[in-house]
Amino acid sequence: MSAPKRVGQHTLQFANPPVIVATASVVGPKEGEGPLGDTFDMVIDDSYFGEETWEKAERKMLEEAVKMVIAKAQLKPQDIDFLLAGDLLNQTISANYAARSLGIPFLGLYGACSTMYEGMALAAMLIDGGFAHHVVAACSSHYDTAERQYRFPTEQGIQRPPTAQWTVTGAGAVLMAPVGNGPRITHATIGRVLDVGIKDPNDMGSAMAPAAVDTIVRHFQDTGRGPIDYDLIITGDLGRVGHEIATKLLGEKKYDVSKNYSDCGILIYDHERQDTHAGGSGCACSAVVFAGHLMGKLNEGRYKRILGVGTGALLSTTATQQGESIPGIGHGVVIEG
Amino acid sequence: MSAPKRVGQHTLQFANPPVIVATASVVGPKEGEGPLGDTFDMVIDDSYFGEETWEKAERKMLEEAVKMVIAKAQLKPQDIDFLLAGDLLNQTISANYAARSLGIPFLGLYGACSTMYEGMALAAMLIDGGFAHHVVAACSSHYDTAERQYRFPTEQGIQRPPTAQWTVTGAGAVLMAPVGNGPRITHATIGRVLDVGIKDPNDMGSAMAPAAVDTIVRHFQDTGRGPIDYDLIITGDLGRVGHEIATKLLGEKKYDVSKNYSDCGILIYDHERQDTHAGGSGCACSAVVFAGHLMGKLNEGRYKRILGVGTGALLSTTATQQGESIPGIGHGVVIEG
Repeated sequence: MSAPKRVGQHTLQFANPPVIVATASVVGPKEGEGPLGDTFDMVIDDSYFGEETWEKAERKMLEEAVKMVIAKAQLKPQDIDFLLAGDLLNQTISANYAARSLGIPFLGLYGACSTMYEGMALAAMLIDGGFAHHVVAACSSHYDTAERQYRFPTEQGIQRPPTAQWTVTGAGAVLMAPVGNGPRITHATIGRVLDVGIKDPNDMGSAMAPAAVDTIVRHFQDTGRGPIDYDLIITGDLGRVGHEIATKLLGEKKYDVSKNYSDCGILIYDHERQDTHAGGSGCACSAVVFAGHLMGKLNEGRYKRILGVGTGALLSTTATQQGESIPGIGHGVVIEG
Repeated sequence: MSAPKRVGQHTLQFANPPVIVATASVVGPKEGEGPLGDTFDMVIDDSYFGEETWEKAERKMLEEAVKMVIAKAQLKPQDIDFLLAGDLLNQTISANYAARSLGIPFLGLYGACSTMYEGMALAAMLIDGGFAHHVVAACSSHYDTAERQYRFPTEQGIQRPPTAQWTVTGAGAVLMAPVGNGPRITHATIGRVLDVGIKDPNDMGSAMAPAAVDTIVRHFQDTGRGPIDYDLIITGDLGRVGHEIATKLLGEKKYDVSKNYSDCGILIYDHERQDTHAGGSGCACSAVVFAGHLMGKLNEGRYKRILGVGTGALLSTTATQQGESIPGIGHGVVIEG
């Protein structure tokens, strides 16, 4: 027996590919000064965004991104059937409190930095399955909230090693519908949790790369496609370290991605000028690069078909303190312009 | 325009109601000694379950519950298309690490104690939508891991107020498929995040009751049904305090639930004998009561149609320290025997 909307063992193929009607992005000052600065909808002036704490600032960015994407689609919050959202903070408080103020039926996700792609894949299933007219997938992250939760408070001024990544301050939102104008999600390949024994929270690229490769390889095997079938293959936030590992691992599987593989964590900062070491990370990294840069290129026709893989390091201070290594996951979504 | 699989504004009505093929439950010693002790598949001897830490014990319970539900259905992990899981711990580490050892494509959820019902609702959409043959929804919680993360380490022996609830030590898993023998999920009403200003982490029943009521009322309005149409209406973990509030709030809306409304947090312990104050809570509360007690009554024919509402208090120490109150959510699922 074979389900009607699957191809191969693990990949979903949507019967009526859901449309990405609108996207919205809000980013912090550093992201605004980066190479993609012009592609974001809103750049906030300071990382507090008028709030008392960074956590409240992060939540406000997420709320703004969701409100903006709904307004761009000329809809109201009550027109949205489901909000799928998550973030990096304990108990995903940015998403929970944003959902409280928005009042939209809410499905909370935790996929670490893969959350945007987990949300887009699920949203595509809910729409193609006939369960919703309008779904918003959204997520956020914030450099200062993530550093103090996962590593050291930024005020402490700890020196960061070259493998460290810089958590993107920002929020991205994607509004999807069964019909409309915009790029379409044609396939999704859901990630498996892989762990290669990395224990250093300042080397997440190495922790996540094998999971991203696992998803990309399964996607190619399921669809019979290869790198040549995509204008761009882009991972979420492997950064320069993880990008190099993923390129090598894919090469070992005979997939040459040297010409068309990039990573959102590499694109979002000018690492020489901005002191961001291995690149960007955080839920917002793949979210705002998709909502801004990639959505622009898809709408322009520069990219006709991309494979995006949101990557997540399932990092936890509790697990690390108990001797555990950091598992990774990567969710793949195909978007056609 | 009206989507084919919706009724009213917010409720999903499945075209081919997914079948709950099997359930599995693993619980701690205290739950095993409670009034529902005989309904669980496995009662562990001590709360460490042979592990070095309570967190690792919780993860092991979750793994065991998922392995058991797959074995009960005479399947193997590689037959499962998706695992939808979450828990209460920061970064949902029980679910992430269980997913690592199981190797099943994984969609991580955060719905606090509503996670089981969020997972069942999503699993039903993925199956009815044609995206999967077999989906496992699962979650876990553990008294000692939850207390030390959210309140005080249990070793400290802090006195608990009468409104406090006792986090259930356990894990539950539900395996769903498009066809087979077992109860079916016919409807789902996804929760909205509501907040009535409760700030006491030892009074979660009061924090969650309004969200549960919101979901139940929307469900009744959407379906044109009322309390009389259900053999049982059961909330996840409101406990005695929240159950009383929910009963009153529903009465104010002219829904008399005095005859057929219960709560898993009340059923799972003998609160006089077991010193559990207002009742049980935690992701595992509604999960193991469903997997054990309710599944048994549905299969016996004692219940023909129930409305289960998984309730979650979106509690966070960070948010509380920043002056925030505790929002609640409730996801409703209709199961017919």
